[in-house]
Amino acid sequence: MASTATTLKGQPLEKPLLDAVLRRRMFYTPSFEIYNGVGGLYDYGPPGCALQTNIVDLWRKHFVLEEDMLEVDCTVLTPHDVLKTSGHVDKFADWMCKDPKNGDILRADHFVEAVLESRLNGDKEARGQKVDETDDPKKKKKKKAKSEAVRLSDDDVTEYQEVLARIDNYDGPELGKLIKKYQLKNPDTGEMPSEPVQFNLMFQTSIGPSSNMRGYLRPETAQGQFLNFAKLLAFNQSQMPFASASIGKSYRNEISPRAGLLRVREFLMAEIEHFVDPQGGKKHSRFHEVADVELVLLDRDTQLSGKTETRKMAVGRAVEERLVDNETLGYFLARIHLFLQRIGVDLSKMRFRQHMQNEMAHYACDCWDAELLTTSGWVECVGCADRSAYDLSVHAKKTGAPLVVRERLDEPLMMEEWEVDIDKKKFGPQFKKDAKAVEEALQATTQEQRKGMASQLQGAGKVTLEVPGVADGKVDIDSESVKIEFRKRFENTREYTPNVIEPSFGIGRILYALIEHNFWTRASDGGDEARGVLSFPPIVAPTKVLLVPLSSNAQFKPVVKTISQKLRRLGVSSRVDDSSASIGKRYSRNDELGTPLGVTVDFQTLQDGTLTLRDRDSTSQVRAAEDKILAAIQSLVDGTKDWAAITSELPKFEGQEVEMAAR
Amino acid sequence: MASTATTLKGQPLEKPLLDAVLRRRMFYTPSFEIYNGVGGLYDYGPPGCALQTNIVDLWRKHFVLEEDMLEVDCTVLTPHDVLKTSGHVDKFADWMCKDPKNGDILRADHFVEAVLESRLNGDKEARGQKVDETDDPKKKKKKKAKSEAVRLSDDDVTEYQEVLARIDNYDGPELGKLIKKYQLKNPDTGEMPSEPVQFNLMFQTSIGPSSNMRGYLRPETAQGQFLNFAKLLAFNQSQMPFASASIGKSYRNEISPRAGLLRVREFLMAEIEHFVDPQGGKKHSRFHEVADVELVLLDRDTQLSGKTETRKMAVGRAVEERLVDNETLGYFLARIHLFLQRIGVDLSKMRFRQHMQNEMAHYACDCWDAELLTTSGWVECVGCADRSAYDLSVHAKKTGAPLVVRERLDEPLMMEEWEVDIDKKKFGPQFKKDAKAVEEALQATTQEQRKGMASQLQGAGKVTLEVPGVADGKVDIDSESVKIEFRKRFENTREYTPNVIEPSFGIGRILYALIEHNFWTRASDGGDEARGVLSFPPIVAPTKVLLVPLSSNAQFKPVVKTISQKLRRLGVSSRVDDSSASIGKRYSRNDELGTPLGVTVDFQTLQDGTLTLRDRDSTSQVRAAEDKILAAIQSLVDGTKDWAAITSELPKFEGQEVEMAAR
Repeated sequence: MASTATTLKGQPLEKPLLDAVLRRRMFYTPSFEIYNGVGGLYDYGPPGCALQTNIVDLWRKHFVLEEDMLEVDCTVLTPHDVLKTSGHVDKFADWMCKDPKNGDILRADHFVEAVLESRLNGDKEARGQKVDETDDPKKKKKKKAKSEAVRLSDDDVTEYQEVLARIDNYDGPELGKLIKKYQLKNPDTGEMPSEPVQFNLMFQTSIGPSSNMRGYLRPETAQGQFLNFAKLLAFNQSQMPFASASIGKSYRNEISPRAGLLRVREFLMAEIEHFVDPQGGKKHSRFHEVADVELVLLDRDTQLSGKTETRKMAVGRAVEERLVDNETLGYFLARIHLFLQRIGVDLSKMRFRQHMQNEMAHYACDCWDAELLTTSGWVECVGCADRSAYDLSVHAKKTGAPLVVRERLDEPLMMEEWEVDIDKKKFGPQFKKDAKAVEEALQATTQEQRKGMASQLQGAGKVTLEVPGVADGKVDIDSESVKIEFRKRFENTREYTPNVIEPSFGIGRILYALIEHNFWTRASDGGDEARGVLSFPPIVAPTKVLLVPLSSNAQFKPVVKTISQKLRRLGVSSRVDDSSASIGKRYSRNDELGTPLGVTVDFQTLQDGTLTLRDRDSTSQVRAAEDKILAAIQSLVDGTKDWAAITSELPKFEGQEVEMAAR
Repeated sequence: MASTATTLKGQPLEKPLLDAVLRRRMFYTPSFEIYNGVGGLYDYGPPGCALQTNIVDLWRKHFVLEEDMLEVDCTVLTPHDVLKTSGHVDKFADWMCKDPKNGDILRADHFVEAVLESRLNGDKEARGQKVDETDDPKKKKKKKAKSEAVRLSDDDVTEYQEVLARIDNYDGPELGKLIKKYQLKNPDTGEMPSEPVQFNLMFQTSIGPSSNMRGYLRPETAQGQFLNFAKLLAFNQSQMPFASASIGKSYRNEISPRAGLLRVREFLMAEIEHFVDPQGGKKHSRFHEVADVELVLLDRDTQLSGKTETRKMAVGRAVEERLVDNETLGYFLARIHLFLQRIGVDLSKMRFRQHMQNEMAHYACDCWDAELLTTSGWVECVGCADRSAYDLSVHAKKTGAPLVVRERLDEPLMMEEWEVDIDKKKFGPQFKKDAKAVEEALQATTQEQRKGMASQLQGAGKVTLEVPGVADGKVDIDSESVKIEFRKRFENTREYTPNVIEPSFGIGRILYALIEHNFWTRASDGGDEARGVLSFPPIVAPTKVLLVPLSSNAQFKPVVKTISQKLRRLGVSSRVDDSSASIGKRYSRNDELGTPLGVTVDFQTLQDGTLTLRDRDSTSQVRAAEDKILAAIQSLVDGTKDWAAITSELPKFEGQEVEMAAR
């Protein structure tokens, strides 16, 4: 298992080299750069946009279509009441501190982490050990504090390391205590920052011309799915379990966005809400299909003990051992693993980390993150939370909407209960304007209370009931208008609020990690270090085929056009590069764009109709007639064949790259 | 050409029937309905979401891939400065009035329109003429004012009609005058509303923890594309012309959103920005491919004369006659026409309407809307504007970024000019802190001024220059530090700001119009009126195939699963309906969902492997072996064959629908 970020070929990944490629090829770029930019906002250029589209398409196929999920598209604008009920208005916040000198706003956990890490690095330096910039497997991207070579006591080193392993588990006051205890100072000013205070991460706006309806930009796509639960259940012809899914933008007003695409204020999410009966252990009918999938797990207890060791285990066994709580949760962890594998994530740089108790979102009762290792450390790219019945319950309670499943029972259930009967004709005139409050208080009584009240009603003919806010808070009920009786009845239906298992994907983070996992330079092959390559699998590559006419000779144009049209008909995206640059330069450019295949049209093509096909990763080429080349392209793109198979079928070609260089 | 909304079979379209289908099948639904909803916000349910995805996919193929456009994905959050420069902060507004009695806020143009139309309807009633709810081809959806049967003078009728034909051309003060002139009163209160005032339609928010950066949700995707122009040009290896494209949400805080999906506050747009050299008449290299496409045109002059008659004309001729300004604009009008045709829009309910001068957005110099006829009248679904060099110029001016094209000239251009040379060593000490202002004033002089200054410098050795803000506004320049000479030089490059042609698609409006154009009921075939059908072309249909096992018999399950997997491998989406409803009911449900094909697995399937295939539109069926049925499905879905071809190839089958009914 990898512990530091490397290139695809195992060399240390030099971030500046990669950044130069991404900028040069416009994968993404800071938004509004000519206006000096805005932190945490990025635009995707053509290759980044195509990569994103391909990841999303595959996601839709892998999850939505494969499992008949009900995809919905809900609005980003969300009124205050909804997010008040869901808990986001009160609890969706980060802890921030202010530097008393320069007014800088710091995210408290990132600040503590950065200063402690810099002290540990300083200690290593003082001890003459090598300081590895990426040797902390828990490291998240944050502002680097410059380290000074100061030696710490061995106890301090151990203590700091334990704090760092638990960093996600501290709340604001605890972070405040750590700042005081260790005298953590802002390296920019030498000052200790203020006590952490909460900062709500939602963007606020107002809806409508009179500006009186407060609203927010949604921080997740989930709420729209919950609010539509009753309609989705009806659409699914009342069958359980089922899942809804949604792909769309969400917004978080990050305190200090950094680290490029990894911590941004506007991002694309893909979320699944799988609704399941909480009774019966949350089994999943397709669990057997994935039970053998091996996952790398970092559980809660390991982290709490200050360690970061992982275990590799088949998900079937993890569920058996209750390391993963239930089959449905386990099923989705395996499906997430398979998805990330399919798009080209390096499996040696992937792990599932369980959240610690204090780290979990306010709605979650268990959560595992799929984390991917990058130059910014381990990054949460997919969360898989068990939100229990939290959201459906709070919205149902607030609105009165029945967000429940009614299930017909095969055998009726006998119920014995104390029931309250009210004779409205007498009850109404008796209590007048208070009648409603008194009735509600009556209906709210427990079985135990009713039993006692029944005997008093039978004996004294009346009983005193506490009704806050009516008269002196007490009201006399009499047996004329109210009866309380113990009755037996049969229930034919069972009503329950489903639990929700939520796999939630940050598409931008996945995209960025995927770029790092597939990056290398020709230096690994003894070539030029400046020649970067992005070895995306064809299925997600922004463009599948580069079409290169040997020169700008007009004779090549119609051939190129025909091939381009034929490829389009096969559903294969291609781009023509007929610029005046050398063939080698043009191929280099497309290696950096991650285009897996290149087709060259040269003078021989005009004579005998043959084309050459070049493989990005090996740079080797084959030459054959057009129809054979097109068939090879199709099988490589849909994954039915690999390059080794093609080279064994079609004659090898010593390419124009060499020829051209020699001329 | 149609003038009223009808079903696909030409019957009057009964909106309540359609609405019931859309609600029942969850095409879309008011957002946050259990919280009583928010005006102008809608969620797409599974079929609406799939329909939207398919329209977007086809859009991407038809425009982006077909024409090698550079797709980008820019942020919705936009800082104030960008939209201030673009003119949106000052000008992106609607005129609204307030009712003095109940405080209702009314959109001024909609209010004038509604009251005048109700008077015209009242006049018709008084004259004993039929009042047709949809007979006004210009009608936009707005709050209906109830009409009273009051006869108007013939002059008034003509005047009102002319006002209505020009309604989009009035600004706020003019609307205010109309309200006063015709004494237009709010039917809800009997009061005349207040003078119209401007209301900016952008949603505002603030970015970052210190809440000091004002921002908006973008009202269009265009600005992000303009700001990235220089990078996109570089990505395109400096080749012109080229187009960028973007698909994403935009936001407009509508004053009084109504009419379902047609006027909403959050909507999906697909926009193209085609950058073209303004010299040479904005030719387009592929114009000949579309020159014969016939468009239905309603030009500016016709509308200004108070009429709404359209002309049908090949786009080639329209450009020749300069009815459409140039080839590039004409090319995109034709491509828009072909796209709408391909997704299934009824061509008899489509027209291109030219904007009148006052109606155009602040950035546009010409604009044609593709309008589709619906029960809400003619609805703008695609705008195709010539934004000239407006946006690139204002952003370049504000930021100093060179949003220009530098073109190498084949023949150098000789320039003869008066040039200013400054000897900085002398000039600096001479003017000290004012040096920069004086230099700017010098560089800003015209050729004519320089000619005069040169002769004074030569004669008197000095000249007086006006420099506002420096000393008394006048400064003496001497020939020691400044020389002005007439010189000849050769320019090897030409620099220009491209013009922009912008086709801009409202996906939600297109989707809704498409639903109306494809809706009909079996009543047209003498069947049940309650049985609605949505005859989407397979290419956009939410699901392509319904799989129906005859009953819930367990024997059918593996067969259904196999077929479903085989279809998925063919890239054809299918859904299984194994509910206990009758086959006929299940087919009915899928007719309403717009599923074009149905496959039944019955007892005969288990014996001989044959399947039946049902056509949604005709309800006729064929029966054949599995491989033949799968091949038929694929050819129907990719459009290479139609149902008539299939019925001529495969044996007809009298369906289980009949059998089942008879049992």
